[in-house]
Amino acid sequence: MRNSPIGVFDSGVGGLTVVKELTREMPNEDIVYFGDTARVPYGTKSASTIQKFSIQNVLFLLKRNVKLIIIACNTSSAIGLPFLSKYFSIPIIGVIKPGAKAAVRSTRNGRIGVIGTSATVLSGAYDKEIKALNSGIKVYSGSCPLFVPLAEEGWANDGIVDVVARKYLAAFKGRNIDTLIMGCTHYPLLRSSIRRVMGKGVKLIDSAEETAKEARGLLEECGLKSAARRKNRSKFYVSDAPDKFRAVARRFLGRDAQAVERVDDV
Amino acid sequence: MRNSPIGVFDSGVGGLTVVKELTREMPNEDIVYFGDTARVPYGTKSASTIQKFSIQNVLFLLKRNVKLIIIACNTSSAIGLPFLSKYFSIPIIGVIKPGAKAAVRSTRNGRIGVIGTSATVLSGAYDKEIKALNSGIKVYSGSCPLFVPLAEEGWANDGIVDVVARKYLAAFKGRNIDTLIMGCTHYPLLRSSIRRVMGKGVKLIDSAEETAKEARGLLEECGLKSAARRKNRSKFYVSDAPDKFRAVARRFLGRDAQAVERVDDV
Repeated sequence: MRNSPIGVFDSGVGGLTVVKELTREMPNEDIVYFGDTARVPYGTKSASTIQKFSIQNVLFLLKRNVKLIIIACNTSSAIGLPFLSKYFSIPIIGVIKPGAKAAVRSTRNGRIGVIGTSATVLSGAYDKEIKALNSGIKVYSGSCPLFVPLAEEGWANDGIVDVVARKYLAAFKGRNIDTLIMGCTHYPLLRSSIRRVMGKGVKLIDSAEETAKEARGLLEECGLKSAARRKNRSKFYVSDAPDKFRAVARRFLGRDAQAVERVDDV
Repeated sequence: MRNSPIGVFDSGVGGLTVVKELTREMPNEDIVYFGDTARVPYGTKSASTIQKFSIQNVLFLLKRNVKLIIIACNTSSAIGLPFLSKYFSIPIIGVIKPGAKAAVRSTRNGRIGVIGTSATVLSGAYDKEIKALNSGIKVYSGSCPLFVPLAEEGWANDGIVDVVARKYLAAFKGRNIDTLIMGCTHYPLLRSSIRRVMGKGVKLIDSAEETAKEARGLLEECGLKSAARRKNRSKFYVSDAPDKFRAVARRFLGRDAQAVERVDDV
């Protein structure tokens, strides 16, 4: 069991940022990744549909004998994690709690901003996790629906992102926040625009690194750390054609994603 | 059979513009609409996935005893129509041919532009239909991936659309086209920006009206026009939760969409 792979799923490619951090944190752990590229995006859809997709993704990974499941998608973590942990016996972690933890550690003035998809913001998941850690912290949230298509269009360095970011982030400017959670795995690709608009005084939180640390802690706790002494093997599954995934994966992963396979049965 | 409903499907809500024109053209025809709102968008996905979804949508409508199927989605029409017409015996029409016909009728200088999703543009479907009608016409195509999220965000009247439209349409400016096909059912919502960028000299083609006329002609030809002497009844099915669909439908349809039902079996 301890040498079984870690399962990771996301609505598409964004979760690869978590894979990258996992590989850095635990180079000998095998990973099975599922990206639901045929049904992406999740963030604009209803809670019941996101729940249905999340259950299907967990079942898919269980069939691949994983020892731990990481929901690398903020939307799925926000909407799906509470009941997935209740339904399934396998340990499951999401990206919300690690992001909240990092933000609470970072803030000096107790004022945190959260940006994410409509579904994530509507769920209030970040507010709950932050308040559970420190009920005195003020949380301000807003959704940025165009950030995902802008990142996928590869326009990260285009002036249009600055214009859109200024529009979305205007509401945060008067709130005197000192920390902003980028609550969607796509947003770190637009980091430089977000930084320009928010200014250097605001710390930007990307939950991928923190999630990898949480995964490591959990595996140690459960005695499930791999005993393998070799570099990890990763296997990637997608629900749409793999060619586009391969191209985008390089940008997210920082290396080629070998062994990408399409599946039709999710 | 002749009093059976017309079936219409789309990846989401955009096809409602076709429903609107159908109702105007043939007020006594019943309509069954399916919007695949859980898997929208199609236009960024691969041909094989779009084909799979299109077959599932046709099968869903066949179970509702429709007499004719209209693919109200440009992407599905471009990728799916050729083999759907081959596989299924029911008459099926798409929006590409009607749009091409209207554009060929409109152009004076024989230079037509086409904008659509990546999948539609990659398919070359408009080029083929236009060339089949008049091989001497020059066709210039380009995809505008951000137009769909911009229209869905409800930013149609925001200055950002002008900035994005200028970027996408720059390539058409030097081509001296006099006609531009808006080859995606979402694009007519951004008509005023597209008009501002292209100028009054370029005629904008929206295929919904032409598609309704083609449907009418086909029903007459096959002796399938409804004999009902009452106003039509429409039934709407969606794969995601119906509440968001209802809200957006009003904007597209110009009236409330009653009888919206969610389906899980597509």
